[in-house]
Amino acid sequence: MNPGSPSSSRADLVEVLDQVHAHVRPLIGQGKVASYIPRLANVPIDRFGMAVATLEGEMITIGAADEPFSIQSISKVFTLTLALEALGADLWKRVGREPSGNAFNSLVQLERERGIPRNPLINAGAHVIADVILSSSPNAREDLLGFVRERADNATISMDEDVARSEREAGFRNIALANFVRSFNNLDNDVDAVLDFYFHQCALQMSCVDLARAFLFLANRGVCQRSGRAVINPDRAKRINALMMTCGTYDAAGEFAFRVGLPVKSGVGGGIVAVVPNAMAVVVWSPGLDGKGNSLVGAAALDRFTALTGLSVF
Amino acid sequence: MNPGSPSSSRADLVEVLDQVHAHVRPLIGQGKVASYIPRLANVPIDRFGMAVATLEGEMITIGAADEPFSIQSISKVFTLTLALEALGADLWKRVGREPSGNAFNSLVQLERERGIPRNPLINAGAHVIADVILSSSPNAREDLLGFVRERADNATISMDEDVARSEREAGFRNIALANFVRSFNNLDNDVDAVLDFYFHQCALQMSCVDLARAFLFLANRGVCQRSGRAVINPDRAKRINALMMTCGTYDAAGEFAFRVGLPVKSGVGGGIVAVVPNAMAVVVWSPGLDGKGNSLVGAAALDRFTALTGLSVF
Amino acid sequence: MNPGSPSSSRADLVEVLDQVHAHVRPLIGQGKVASYIPRLANVPIDRFGMAVATLEGEMITIGAADEPFSIQSISKVFTLTLALEALGADLWKRVGREPSGNAFNSLVQLERERGIPRNPLINAGAHVIADVILSSSPNAREDLLGFVRERADNATISMDEDVARSEREAGFRNIALANFVRSFNNLDNDVDAVLDFYFHQCALQMSCVDLARAFLFLANRGVCQRSGRAVINPDRAKRINALMMTCGTYDAAGEFAFRVGLPVKSGVGGGIVAVVPNAMAVVVWSPGLDGKGNSLVGAAALDRFTALTGLSVF
Amino acid sequence: MNPGSPSSSRADLVEVLDQVHAHVRPLIGQGKVASYIPRLANVPIDRFGMAVATLEGEMITIGAADEPFSIQSISKVFTLTLALEALGADLWKRVGREPSGNAFNSLVQLERERGIPRNPLINAGAHVIADVILSSSPNAREDLLGFVRERADNATISMDEDVARSEREAGFRNIALANFVRSFNNLDNDVDAVLDFYFHQCALQMSCVDLARAFLFLANRGVCQRSGRAVINPDRAKRINALMMTCGTYDAAGEFAFRVGLPVKSGVGGGIVAVVPNAMAVVVWSPGLDGKGNSLVGAAALDRFTALTGLSVF
Repeated sequence: MNPGSPSSSRADLVEVLDQVHAHVRPLIGQGKVASYIPRLANVPIDRFGMAVATLEGEMITIGAADEPFSIQSISKVFTLTLALEALGADLWKRVGREPSGNAFNSLVQLERERGIPRNPLINAGAHVIADVILSSSPNAREDLLGFVRERADNATISMDEDVARSEREAGFRNIALANFVRSFNNLDNDVDAVLDFYFHQCALQMSCVDLARAFLFLANRGVCQRSGRAVINPDRAKRINALMMTCGTYDAAGEFAFRVGLPVKSGVGGGIVAVVPNAMAVVVWSPGLDGKGNSLVGAAALDRFTALTGLSVF
Repeated sequence: MNPGSPSSSRADLVEVLDQVHAHVRPLIGQGKVASYIPRLANVPIDRFGMAVATLEGEMITIGAADEPFSIQSISKVFTLTLALEALGADLWKRVGREPSGNAFNSLVQLERERGIPRNPLINAGAHVIADVILSSSPNAREDLLGFVRERADNATISMDEDVARSEREAGFRNIALANFVRSFNNLDNDVDAVLDFYFHQCALQMSCVDLARAFLFLANRGVCQRSGRAVINPDRAKRINALMMTCGTYDAAGEFAFRVGLPVKSGVGGGIVAVVPNAMAVVVWSPGLDGKGNSLVGAAALDRFTALTGLSVF
Repeated sequence: MNPGSPSSSRADLVEVLDQVHAHVRPLIGQGKVASYIPRLANVPIDRFGMAVATLEGEMITIGAADEPFSIQSISKVFTLTLALEALGADLWKRVGREPSGNAFNSLVQLERERGIPRNPLINAGAHVIADVILSSSPNAREDLLGFVRERADNATISMDEDVARSEREAGFRNIALANFVRSFNNLDNDVDAVLDFYFHQCALQMSCVDLARAFLFLANRGVCQRSGRAVINPDRAKRINALMMTCGTYDAAGEFAFRVGLPVKSGVGGGIVAVVPNAMAVVVWSPGLDGKGNSLVGAAALDRFTALTGLSVF
Repeated sequence: MNPGSPSSSRADLVEVLDQVHAHVRPLIGQGKVASYIPRLANVPIDRFGMAVATLEGEMITIGAADEPFSIQSISKVFTLTLALEALGADLWKRVGREPSGNAFNSLVQLERERGIPRNPLINAGAHVIADVILSSSPNAREDLLGFVRERADNATISMDEDVARSEREAGFRNIALANFVRSFNNLDNDVDAVLDFYFHQCALQMSCVDLARAFLFLANRGVCQRSGRAVINPDRAKRINALMMTCGTYDAAGEFAFRVGLPVKSGVGGGIVAVVPNAMAVVVWSPGLDGKGNSLVGAAALDRFTALTGLSVF
């Protein structure tokens, strides 16, 4: 395939993933594996997997694409989808839509903006989203699990209780944030219940293949690519993509937009998901993180992938 | 044209602009005209114009699309283009690529980040860009004017000396920012020379038609739509679009990405330019500003335009 | 007594308190009673009491000087004294000695300064102090109560369990702060235990008379005025006074230094304690708070008191 | 003299200064001389002088106490005195009285607090003070020089034009601050005129002896110790002392209050002045600065001086 000319045929993509893998191989092992909980700390830093799911129904993979890992913050896109369905546009009274500038500012902004988190993809925002979901369903955790399993077409997906428990034990910063939001009356449920839900969503174990399939509706204007049914309406799908573009990678959103040019969401487990509107979902996993908490190899792989395919929204 | 289905035929776009105009008409007169300099303060708040330039060479307009106005910060995209050509990737050692979070933070960030402005589209970043251009050419101002005239295919475009002088007289905040950047040794030229260039770029007078034509190369992977020659390479065009998406509208970049879903750049003169990659450039002008300094009617018009046409990168 | 000439004879002070009372009477009822917990919210806003204890052993009072109230943050001086005795100068590795600038900054500073609170008299600093005390004694709460009773020479002083429980139920901000400090590993004990101690110290019920007596050792270079025994060494007494001067009244420390010119500590229960080195301790209580959380009438009374007596360290 | 027992007889003080000198001698040469302008950079780091002026009329010195140096920010106390006389309490509408927290915050606070500097002893505050003086007199610079000469009883004191010029050439940060304050309409005079005055006040050349004599009125409730005439009223003298205590040493005010316990003002020329109310003025000079911009040896000398004499307001 010619670099620069968009293409998504199976053969082309197989070749692209080979080239991407060759390109990032020297980087594998660099960065640091998240170490604040044992389950994450014990993942070997040399793991690498990648999966591309196309709207035509193809799934192209390389490396450990079938190995489940802790999706962590990637789960925030799933819960945002559920909360938008539950509450609609009223959701935006409780959480903003602007990038947070940088990590340093998050608490300041929360204070200045009276407990309204900057966006739903930072931790405090995800706490509010969790609260909305808890208020909308008596079985919130099961609902989330069911939604994710259906999106990924994989009934074996589960939450790792060990991860959830460790997250709670090490989660002083999240406990601080949620109580701070609560002090501004922007949580309706018990803070512990909100955090319990949040720590469980972070503990979802999914593979690159699972995630690629599960995110495909966002590349398809909200429509399930298998059933043809709307998961969410097209406007909301577009808007979730917009939020991923401006807020999906912590303090590196500008950098990802600049280098990759696609809506993306990352997690400290080392996964990164990218959506190519009207075309495909691309997932990379490699647990070594860069200084901003994004997969170092994952970022390089996406950078290379878009350079080779010419796929970018710009 | 069916709402939701992308289309760019001339007839469709004429109808769309009519509908957009009808939609925003009740809003015209709302907001506040920028009042810090007389030339801007004296522009009647009820002005409205819109122009769409397509890659097929069509120009569709409505309202006062031929009336020149002060483009102000929209000029930052032109100077960024010139500075990238002059300095290449080394530019990013002197200015960042992340959204600034909000206006409030700009000075703090500048201090914490040792004089490296967050991105080239905030004022401090534009000062650095101006400095780069001054260092690269003995006739920087003429070069900029020549570049803009060629892009817009209009040799009568000029800088309003009265605006430039007023900007300087009222420009205490810009003088503060530039001296602050200078205190970190991130300006090579005399601060006054940098500001003089900056105040002149802001004083460019262009119409919606001029701007639509002048931005079309960014919708065309960097290639001039008339001559077929590369203005900048495709990667840089994509990256300028990415910066417009994440940083183009002051503190409302997240909101614009969410509602409009296109790379945009606004100015306090009331203009907003949007780029639809591989399709067109869309320009709206109406001088009443919202609380964040963007044209109130312009934002509503772009919102409606993308809703009607389905044009969005997401 | 002549305004401006320092004096502390009993007769003079009786007259001064009369004049102070007359001066502030029109202000009583102004401000707002702290409303975040029922016990504080239910205190009648028109309460006023004042007590002066001199090194000569005199106790001069006016108004409801014997009525116990919730001392809240005034307790931070007692716990600082205990923690200094327990840990000595090592304490300053875990908490700073600078004013915090303003309330807004506290969380930012905590983040920038890696969990080292600015000073021991802001809430986060008091959590660290509580942690030090918990580490130094198996009966920390009883030790504190014993210390306070001995200082005030009043064995009936108690902690109001209802206040402590309410503080905990409404204490989302404190829970947030303590967990945030913990996330930087600057708490050794269980966060809940630290907060439990903290909420109990705030729930101490003392009268103006109790507090005036209890603070007299700080006016006496650390020596108990009754027994003549050292409570703490003279250097530490001076330094606690210095901290009260620069950090004792939230964001109004500069204002208090400017207007009152004495080391002071306030609490949201409406109490303010002032130390006149080598002379006396002065306590005012009135529950209506100004915008910065200090007793409105108390501040006016101290201002008047120092104007009439000429007592000021400057 | 017994450590801990306040004393100010000439013989005692001679011995104290000897002991202080012996104590700090090993530190001389440590720290860094201010290097942003040549005149300061060229001062030998091993200079040391100290002078104590008592209300009894004694002047005790050691080292280079008669050598003039650049007093820099110490001048802010003189200009504050003049501005208070010119404008009275209205001054406090234009500048605050709270410590600034830290250097980092100064610009933020200026932005949040709409151009009202935190206090008159930070640079932005001194610009406002300079503006007040310029508005009150057609010969502001001569007035200041006359005032300082009279206070110090030395008609040869002058402003070093070379320092003033260098300050201007290197003064990007001050230019930024003054223009920022101006953008909030908190300067009435031309920004350049304000800065010109400010750079000249910083360029005052005075010796330890000059400064000790010149600050003695603040130890004497505002009264000139030679003439017995009021320089300012006693309340204002007390309040200037209070401001020196809470704001006199940049971000180290809490630390100085804690360790030294006296109102002090430092300058980057290496001078520090301390006021002992009702007793004396103490001046140390040594050009090596610590990380916060205060004389490293000067701070140690004052610390030792107060430890030996027991002099402290607490």
